[in-house]
Amino acid sequence: MLAERYASPALRAIWSPSGRVGIERDYWIAVMKAQRELGLSIPAAAIASYERVKGQIDLASIDARERASLHDVKARIDEFNALAGHERIHLGLTSRDLTENVEQLQVARSLEVFRMKTAAALLALARRAKEFRSVLLTGRTHNVPAQPTTLGKRFAMAGQELWQAYVRLDELAARYPARGLKGAVGTQLDQLTLFGGDAAKVDKLERRILAHLGFKQALNAVGQVYPRSLDFEVVSAYHQIGAAAASFASTLRLMAGQGLLTEGFQKGQVGSSAMPHKVNARNCERICGFSTLLSGYVTMTGALAGHQWNEGDVSCSVVRRVALPDASFALDGALETLLTVLGQMDVFKAAIAAENTRQLPFLSTTTILMEAVKAGAGRETAHAAIKEHALATAQDLRAGGGGPGLVERLAGDSRLGLTQAQLMAVLTDTRRFVGAAPQQVDAFVRTVAPLARKVKGAATYQPGRLL
Amino acid sequence: MLAERYASPALRAIWSPSGRVGIERDYWIAVMKAQRELGLSIPAAAIASYERVKGQIDLASIDARERASLHDVKARIDEFNALAGHERIHLGLTSRDLTENVEQLQVARSLEVFRMKTAAALLALARRAKEFRSVLLTGRTHNVPAQPTTLGKRFAMAGQELWQAYVRLDELAARYPARGLKGAVGTQLDQLTLFGGDAAKVDKLERRILAHLGFKQALNAVGQVYPRSLDFEVVSAYHQIGAAAASFASTLRLMAGQGLLTEGFQKGQVGSSAMPHKVNARNCERICGFSTLLSGYVTMTGALAGHQWNEGDVSCSVVRRVALPDASFALDGALETLLTVLGQMDVFKAAIAAENTRQLPFLSTTTILMEAVKAGAGRETAHAAIKEHALATAQDLRAGGGGPGLVERLAGDSRLGLTQAQLMAVLTDTRRFVGAAPQQVDAFVRTVAPLARKVKGAATYQPGRLL
Amino acid sequence: MLAERYASPALRAIWSPSGRVGIERDYWIAVMKAQRELGLSIPAAAIASYERVKGQIDLASIDARERASLHDVKARIDEFNALAGHERIHLGLTSRDLTENVEQLQVARSLEVFRMKTAAALLALARRAKEFRSVLLTGRTHNVPAQPTTLGKRFAMAGQELWQAYVRLDELAARYPARGLKGAVGTQLDQLTLFGGDAAKVDKLERRILAHLGFKQALNAVGQVYPRSLDFEVVSAYHQIGAAAASFASTLRLMAGQGLLTEGFQKGQVGSSAMPHKVNARNCERICGFSTLLSGYVTMTGALAGHQWNEGDVSCSVVRRVALPDASFALDGALETLLTVLGQMDVFKAAIAAENTRQLPFLSTTTILMEAVKAGAGRETAHAAIKEHALATAQDLRAGGGGPGLVERLAGDSRLGLTQAQLMAVLTDTRRFVGAAPQQVDAFVRTVAPLARKVKGAATYQPGRLL
Amino acid sequence: MLAERYASPALRAIWSPSGRVGIERDYWIAVMKAQRELGLSIPAAAIASYERVKGQIDLASIDARERASLHDVKARIDEFNALAGHERIHLGLTSRDLTENVEQLQVARSLEVFRMKTAAALLALARRAKEFRSVLLTGRTHNVPAQPTTLGKRFAMAGQELWQAYVRLDELAARYPARGLKGAVGTQLDQLTLFGGDAAKVDKLERRILAHLGFKQALNAVGQVYPRSLDFEVVSAYHQIGAAAASFASTLRLMAGQGLLTEGFQKGQVGSSAMPHKVNARNCERICGFSTLLSGYVTMTGALAGHQWNEGDVSCSVVRRVALPDASFALDGALETLLTVLGQMDVFKAAIAAENTRQLPFLSTTTILMEAVKAGAGRETAHAAIKEHALATAQDLRAGGGGPGLVERLAGDSRLGLTQAQLMAVLTDTRRFVGAAPQQVDAFVRTVAPLARKVKGAATYQPGRLL
Repeated sequence: MLAERYASPALRAIWSPSGRVGIERDYWIAVMKAQRELGLSIPAAAIASYERVKGQIDLASIDARERASLHDVKARIDEFNALAGHERIHLGLTSRDLTENVEQLQVARSLEVFRMKTAAALLALARRAKEFRSVLLTGRTHNVPAQPTTLGKRFAMAGQELWQAYVRLDELAARYPARGLKGAVGTQLDQLTLFGGDAAKVDKLERRILAHLGFKQALNAVGQVYPRSLDFEVVSAYHQIGAAAASFASTLRLMAGQGLLTEGFQKGQVGSSAMPHKVNARNCERICGFSTLLSGYVTMTGALAGHQWNEGDVSCSVVRRVALPDASFALDGALETLLTVLGQMDVFKAAIAAENTRQLPFLSTTTILMEAVKAGAGRETAHAAIKEHALATAQDLRAGGGGPGLVERLAGDSRLGLTQAQLMAVLTDTRRFVGAAPQQVDAFVRTVAPLARKVKGAATYQPGRLL
Repeated sequence: MLAERYASPALRAIWSPSGRVGIERDYWIAVMKAQRELGLSIPAAAIASYERVKGQIDLASIDARERASLHDVKARIDEFNALAGHERIHLGLTSRDLTENVEQLQVARSLEVFRMKTAAALLALARRAKEFRSVLLTGRTHNVPAQPTTLGKRFAMAGQELWQAYVRLDELAARYPARGLKGAVGTQLDQLTLFGGDAAKVDKLERRILAHLGFKQALNAVGQVYPRSLDFEVVSAYHQIGAAAASFASTLRLMAGQGLLTEGFQKGQVGSSAMPHKVNARNCERICGFSTLLSGYVTMTGALAGHQWNEGDVSCSVVRRVALPDASFALDGALETLLTVLGQMDVFKAAIAAENTRQLPFLSTTTILMEAVKAGAGRETAHAAIKEHALATAQDLRAGGGGPGLVERLAGDSRLGLTQAQLMAVLTDTRRFVGAAPQQVDAFVRTVAPLARKVKGAATYQPGRLL
Repeated sequence: MLAERYASPALRAIWSPSGRVGIERDYWIAVMKAQRELGLSIPAAAIASYERVKGQIDLASIDARERASLHDVKARIDEFNALAGHERIHLGLTSRDLTENVEQLQVARSLEVFRMKTAAALLALARRAKEFRSVLLTGRTHNVPAQPTTLGKRFAMAGQELWQAYVRLDELAARYPARGLKGAVGTQLDQLTLFGGDAAKVDKLERRILAHLGFKQALNAVGQVYPRSLDFEVVSAYHQIGAAAASFASTLRLMAGQGLLTEGFQKGQVGSSAMPHKVNARNCERICGFSTLLSGYVTMTGALAGHQWNEGDVSCSVVRRVALPDASFALDGALETLLTVLGQMDVFKAAIAAENTRQLPFLSTTTILMEAVKAGAGRETAHAAIKEHALATAQDLRAGGGGPGLVERLAGDSRLGLTQAQLMAVLTDTRRFVGAAPQQVDAFVRTVAPLARKVKGAATYQPGRLL
Repeated sequence: MLAERYASPALRAIWSPSGRVGIERDYWIAVMKAQRELGLSIPAAAIASYERVKGQIDLASIDARERASLHDVKARIDEFNALAGHERIHLGLTSRDLTENVEQLQVARSLEVFRMKTAAALLALARRAKEFRSVLLTGRTHNVPAQPTTLGKRFAMAGQELWQAYVRLDELAARYPARGLKGAVGTQLDQLTLFGGDAAKVDKLERRILAHLGFKQALNAVGQVYPRSLDFEVVSAYHQIGAAAASFASTLRLMAGQGLLTEGFQKGQVGSSAMPHKVNARNCERICGFSTLLSGYVTMTGALAGHQWNEGDVSCSVVRRVALPDASFALDGALETLLTVLGQMDVFKAAIAAENTRQLPFLSTTTILMEAVKAGAGRETAHAAIKEHALATAQDLRAGGGGPGLVERLAGDSRLGLTQAQLMAVLTDTRRFVGAAPQQVDAFVRTVAPLARKVKGAATYQPGRLL
């Protein structure tokens, strides 16, 4: 379901049944090449034949073979051999030598995709942060007005959280190890036999296969399977990224509810004709949903971790069949949706300014007092006047808010001697109220800017069309 | 409960009420020093006074102050000031400038403790792996005999999983950032005011405080709070360590159930006099329990992540008050218990050998066939004889196992022409059957050896006495 | 931490160390009474002595005994015997016969407390639902205005969710079974020995103990421990209650952010003097936090379930020591806080009405059209006028909302021929717009009303003072 | 993936895309019937037409319509109308009036299936418990021998845990409520409009629809959606069932590892020819895997609970699309696998007896002492002899166990005066050692026996063939 409705082509190419067959074939070819290089008599022409047909993936034919042999790996071996006209693959491998490493290739390739898309999201957040760098916004804690900030800072805050998650993903991707060719209980017994007990050759074989596949390292002391806490490490890194997206989406949902912005529409998507002002944050809600899904896959992989018996059992099997692809699809959905929202969202600056007019005066009374004194008012007189109007305005807000705002009230009180224009000048003086928010935006932009260069494809990536 | 029954003094010193007061005072002193260095008029003598009394922690007195003022931070400020005879702390700070950074110091110091104890556990696993490097063991997959391995390899496998977790923890500890001095909504408004709008000084202030405390970096664009996905990152790193310990503990529990080893007793602890052979794996069970606890704290912190509103809310407050200390105590308990078990466990080598005698013959029939042929038997005759005895022995095992083992049967069959001694020589020929297991042990030992030098205290750390 | 800061006296009395000692003593006395009734020679005077001293709980003395004997159950036996001057307790019991049943008594008593407090919360919600039964409110889906409802309905919706959770808790409390006196592996071997193999007497013994303690049934076929999925059933029932509270609290947090209500202050609590209009929903946030804690204890107990080995292992021990009390404290905190909020919250009806004035016109345009036609306007003319003003108002809202509302605009357009008073009459006609909301409130009130009679203490329960 | 590989036809019929279309059509027909009964002019012939074509489900045609209209509900309406040649469905419904109730029908029907299959599993456990009612077995706590029990009791213990879960499921199924026809924000505004404001008719309409569909009750005060804690209630009930299966499966995995039984083979499945004695507990491992999956869906639905905003949001949507079907498939897989294992498992009674011979003597030394004294030995002499042999045997077991067992040693010591036959008579005297285990089996069998009559299909249900 996740695959069909939400995942991008890149992820489906990795995790779909045919995608998996493709990765298996890459893996078999890598093994043959390495075996040949180390002296096993596998003709180059045979390898070339496999290379030539590896893209011909006919799931129906494989299924028919499996129904006959009742063995899934065998069926896929036979199919590939039949296509290539050779029988050279899977030499000296046990099933787990294939499946463990292939699943790790699926994970490793997913990590690369997510590294790119997370970098793309960081760059998009930086663009928005820069765009709204100095736009005054009523900051909220406990969901109520607290102190001024800038709209750009909100994007930078989201970016800061995502950046932490990115750094972790980047570290993990850089050292994510393959299990390697280790045999039934991890002792390499079968490969050693194949190479006449020559441990150095078995070592080289493993290293060359890894090089062909793009892995930088293999695990050393494993059993039949690699430690399942590694799956937990991967999925918890996914959740960290998804959670950064979801915290941001939650805040956008709150802002949409206050009429400050809309997450926007995809090209061609039509809003409600009956209620043209309605701005549902559907996609932001969906991002939160993906994050919730990821939290469940964290529980699943977190429950496998710590429960492995001896050299390996298969109570993990059905869990990994579900959790690894579905967690990948969920994170992919979250990132695609986040990029879409960042691309198409629409900010209502005037509505934001109107909220500032209503809320900021309460947060600025001491500053106004100083201005009134500078303008000639007596300090105690001014203080009493401000307090009187603040309380009356608060009372009025609770009573429905129809009355004049605090600024209007203050402007209308001759004890203070400040015009509405003078008061508004105080309240919209970004430099005075927003503190270091714009500089924090600048720092965030500087931090992520190198990704455009370092992460291939990130700067130009466009999300697919959402369902 | 966790604190009292299971945590070590080092962890209690960090997370107990008095431990927290101590860390707060360190923090306030670091702020004063930095403020003084940057020109605020805080006398060196005042700072010295605070330094002098910082160890005088009287929780009852603080409680009494809190009952009077109904404000916990205020109570602790007043107490420290009264002790020092000055009123210089907390200058220009909001409550969150204190609490966020202090909680992060608690986390950062816990990370250091866990880095050391995980390194100690890796070194202990390496010692055991080396000790049993070549001890032949019946490897199991699906919990039934599969292929030979070595006992040392089992320790190395546990070490491999723990090593992955250690590397992640090490990366995290190296870059774990403080929130820094950011004010009520994260814009540094109050510090900027204090330093007359001099942003460069505010920057320096933050950097000096971090230097005093040992942080390498601060977050940039945050709100009232740091992103809660950072707590999830920490707790999920804990779970990864705990899970490595628990997988190993599960396998020890299985081995204890088969009479192959005991987790041992603490000095002075008496075993059952009624049943002197009984070897309960209580501590290993407890390690699994700690891992389960950690999985719950992963859920809690994973649920906070992604649900933060605007510049911050406090729906996280009660969760973090529980999950951060309790997750730390749980991991501490797991590591202390693991170190204890590794120190005192006792392996029954003869029982392991007896299992090999029963199980390995089934895994070695092709090798025995070759030996028989070498010794002069006809291949088909030998094959039929071996098959006959293997089936009979399997049948006998299902029927209660009272009869002769496969080796005895084969030795007694003149068609093969092999003595029991010759057969046993085949079966215990480690080099033949255990593949690369000993070399994998060596590689693991080499990998972790540098920790003895790189991680202070790891090589000599002794766990405390368990309850 | 949870116990000290958030739990009520009733819960602390159950789960504190001294509370547990008290429950153990009740249990031992129940066993003695039943044993005496069935013919064992335990003098009534001895039982009376135990009854007399059971309230004298000196934890320090027990601790001293434990330090001497290094056995916690033994220490508590010795203390109770010393106080009573007899040695009659624990006859024929193994440790688990004590601890399993005592922990279940703690659970059973907690269930009773939560049944009462949940009933109290339902009655409080019913009172509020009734109070605001017909108060028109702008209903929201996707967090944006959707259709009218009533404020009372929002309380009834929260009540509906809590009612489902209550019914489940009630079912569980009614059938929550004790493990019973089953011995070391659950076969009652020791009790059978004590009663000379008389199975009927052992049966009666168990039933009488249960009757003394208030259990309606015991489990039959158990091992050393009762199935841990029963703990999961309990804690997941807690989470269901806590989640109902948290969904309601989330909506209150949203409403507070829009200035429609405040969760109020406790007597004596002072709001911010600087910002008298600030209405932090701190307690509602805390309710959400308790719900997040519960989700973690669900994970913990859900991870124990399904992992029990043979007749029982103790990998559950440390988990249950933490999760059972802490989950109870968390739910207790959630219910106490919910009751507090329901008692003290303050609704700003005028602010709600003002929101209706802004939002409902958009949801009522077809009704207004009909009224205009009835008042003599041409249908097409009126339709065009309404659309024009709706779009202009929506545009204005996005632009900051300073301009006139839709009603004002419509009232000012002579093409429609409707005064502002006539338009407001349409918009505030509850019967027209709110559908069955008031009747749903009535039905909810009827559903929960019997709880006042059926659940002792629920109608009059007052929450304690929150920290 | 779960659907294709593991789910039974019954579950696929409910949750597959075509299954859902079928349930939607049943729902629409039920609404039409009720509307007609209450006076709306829907011709009986039209309803008959819909009935006639409801089984013609052409997903490709529906997909083509969706691609044209970009609206999934609309596409399915159009398809059904086109097939029937009428346009009478969906009258006065909003999308949620369809989707919420249809999803609840999927849940309600799943609950019925699981009620039946759980009852079938309980009956199967009872059959096995009865079969092995009095077969002496070495009971284990901490995974080491503790006290005798019977093999039948182990099945009854599993049954006891599953019975608790069954009772809960049964309660839930009996009261699982539909959301009902409630409209966009739950106020029934649209249905009231359709019936001219006649609330009584709207009430009747809802009740008749429920009756047609088999629901016993509808929720009263809901918003756009029903409370998501109800989904958590369902999925946590699933997890409780799955956990009972998994605890049992864990114990079978342990027993298989000790060679006491095999989970058996499906008809036609071939075991390893190379290792005919190998008894992998693959299916038991899979049951544990399903339980782990369910724990993750508990986390997901538990995270939705407590996070619903106002009258409803759709952050739950993508989560429920995944978690509700996948949790159902996982539980279905667990139950199918459990039933398969219970059907085909094979117990090695002689191996069990051999373990008893090795282990029970240690647990029976006091009894043997009494027998020796009865046979004329001096008590102190006998005591010393027994202790001497017990220690020697324990030592021998640790040393590999090749030496004589405790019974042989005792039989060989003239100080005791007991023959091996006399000693074995003591040790295999079920009535003496197994306590109430057989009677507990009987009680369990009596408890579940009525299910054969009360739950349709349970007594005869046969699981499908596993992949």
